[in-house]
Amino acid sequence: MDEFSFIDSIKQYTYKQPTLKKGIGDDAAVFRQPSEDIVTAVDTFVEDVHFTRKTMDPFHVGYRALAANISDLAAMGASPAFYLVSVVIPKTWRIEEVEQIFFGMKDLAGIYKLDLIGGDTVSGKELTVSVTVIGYVDRNKARYRSQAEDGDVVFVTGTLGDSQAGLYILTHPDNYMDERYYIRKHQKPAPRVAFAKGLNDLPRVALNDISDGIANEAAEIAATSHVDITLDAGALPVSASFDQFPEKLQRYWKLFGGEDFEIMGTVAKEDWPKVKRAAEQTKTPIAKIGDVQYIGREVNQVYLHENNQSQPLQKKGYIHMK
Amino acid sequence: MDEFSFIDSIKQYTYKQPTLKKGIGDDAAVFRQPSEDIVTAVDTFVEDVHFTRKTMDPFHVGYRALAANISDLAAMGASPAFYLVSVVIPKTWRIEEVEQIFFGMKDLAGIYKLDLIGGDTVSGKELTVSVTVIGYVDRNKARYRSQAEDGDVVFVTGTLGDSQAGLYILTHPDNYMDERYYIRKHQKPAPRVAFAKGLNDLPRVALNDISDGIANEAAEIAATSHVDITLDAGALPVSASFDQFPEKLQRYWKLFGGEDFEIMGTVAKEDWPKVKRAAEQTKTPIAKIGDVQYIGREVNQVYLHENNQSQPLQKKGYIHMK
Repeated sequence: MDEFSFIDSIKQYTYKQPTLKKGIGDDAAVFRQPSEDIVTAVDTFVEDVHFTRKTMDPFHVGYRALAANISDLAAMGASPAFYLVSVVIPKTWRIEEVEQIFFGMKDLAGIYKLDLIGGDTVSGKELTVSVTVIGYVDRNKARYRSQAEDGDVVFVTGTLGDSQAGLYILTHPDNYMDERYYIRKHQKPAPRVAFAKGLNDLPRVALNDISDGIANEAAEIAATSHVDITLDAGALPVSASFDQFPEKLQRYWKLFGGEDFEIMGTVAKEDWPKVKRAAEQTKTPIAKIGDVQYIGREVNQVYLHENNQSQPLQKKGYIHMK
Repeated sequence: MDEFSFIDSIKQYTYKQPTLKKGIGDDAAVFRQPSEDIVTAVDTFVEDVHFTRKTMDPFHVGYRALAANISDLAAMGASPAFYLVSVVIPKTWRIEEVEQIFFGMKDLAGIYKLDLIGGDTVSGKELTVSVTVIGYVDRNKARYRSQAEDGDVVFVTGTLGDSQAGLYILTHPDNYMDERYYIRKHQKPAPRVAFAKGLNDLPRVALNDISDGIANEAAEIAATSHVDITLDAGALPVSASFDQFPEKLQRYWKLFGGEDFEIMGTVAKEDWPKVKRAAEQTKTPIAKIGDVQYIGREVNQVYLHENNQSQPLQKKGYIHMK
């Protein structure tokens, strides 16, 4: 298969987004959005850094790469509309496998009606997938990390640590409860777009998606909002069969395990019932996991409240390139 | 330098684009453009595939990567506004060198008032720079490859083959005329944004930028517009001292040499004087290099007219990943 047949095979021939004017096939794509704000982010995944072929087949590499990007938009309160994909292809990958990466993205894109509107395919030594996602949010309704305030309720969707549990199962074959569930959470995470959009009517909410572990994401909210955050260890939600894993790992995964792509946020106490309602309406599990304090200090801190005392929580999330 | 100091060092602290609402520092960037169409493209550059450190220092790697993207927008008739950069960093590159890549981009971004609004830095085996560029074009004024019509004049800006000549000089040290000029054309190409914008009032013009050689770009216009194109070999513009290079290379570079980032296009005969005027006003050298024929065939062809006869011109442009 040459480059042109490959592009033909991954290209979309019909587009779903009514704002799109020109998709793939020229120097650039063109769209028009006069009434909403436009939101964009990019994420890059490198073989043997972010995934291995032992635990991810090419379909899931694509699926998860796009999921991570869509999750970024969800954490802005935005709906995804378009994506562009740049892929570096080494000789060790067959074109049919690279196609599977795109099919994985297309599978998830279908759910959210995203259109693939551009990209680049180049050769190189290392399989690298870089996804740019573009979406829309109601004017002035983008949800920033910096919007947490004193007295806010801290909440999180879903359960924590499942993606890392799935990876563990894949790399430590044995008999596990809910094996397929954890593996699915690792390979096919479901970004919380509907829930985040459900918060649209709230006057203020701070949001962050959990790509690098809740400790790290909470620290980002604390730093940009200039507040302290206390997380209640007992309230951090985990799956029912999560206690089958070694205790040390359970703790590590739920605090520092990345790639759950759940949404954490903070909201004024009086708006917390509205957040719960949005969760119900979108069938999203949700838990109150802590609160926000403002003490007017320069450096802000996340605390973990456990055994009747609060300890500073280090951020040990997934930080690449240290 | 850790990831955070690195991001601090490359991050913009003030933004130039009035449509930007949120730059770097959250899950995604936010902007608003109610009155124009939005144009976006991505390009990826891999060390030892698209450049080597022998002929490109990190500053120029960045400069040229962004130039290639801006050129894509120019070829749509659009003005660039934002860029996002994803970079894969191997252990063999020092962070200070990676910074230089960003400084190179910033240098060019300064000229066009582009804001860096997002990105990702990850570790890997191979230096890879992936740039997404976003810009604006007047509504319904995006210029497509598919807009060529029978009887059109074919034109090109600047001179052809200079970038490849510059690369040749860098890899074959000797005494050359205009050495610095050719090297500059290779390392710091100047995308033709002002000229392309100057065509804004034309009712129709097909545009393509020359990233893969004029033979290949003309073939793209021919294929998408369903027309034939005849290029006049004697009219293809080259620099005054271009004849100092071996004749075979001259011919190869001007027809198939990529990365000149000039603009080629086709326009109705009666609008050709307006194109020349736009070129004059933006101090852009321009030449008529051929014409467009429509013969109603299924497969379309580019011809080279040379020595009183027309021969089919193969596209042997820079195609990676064959």
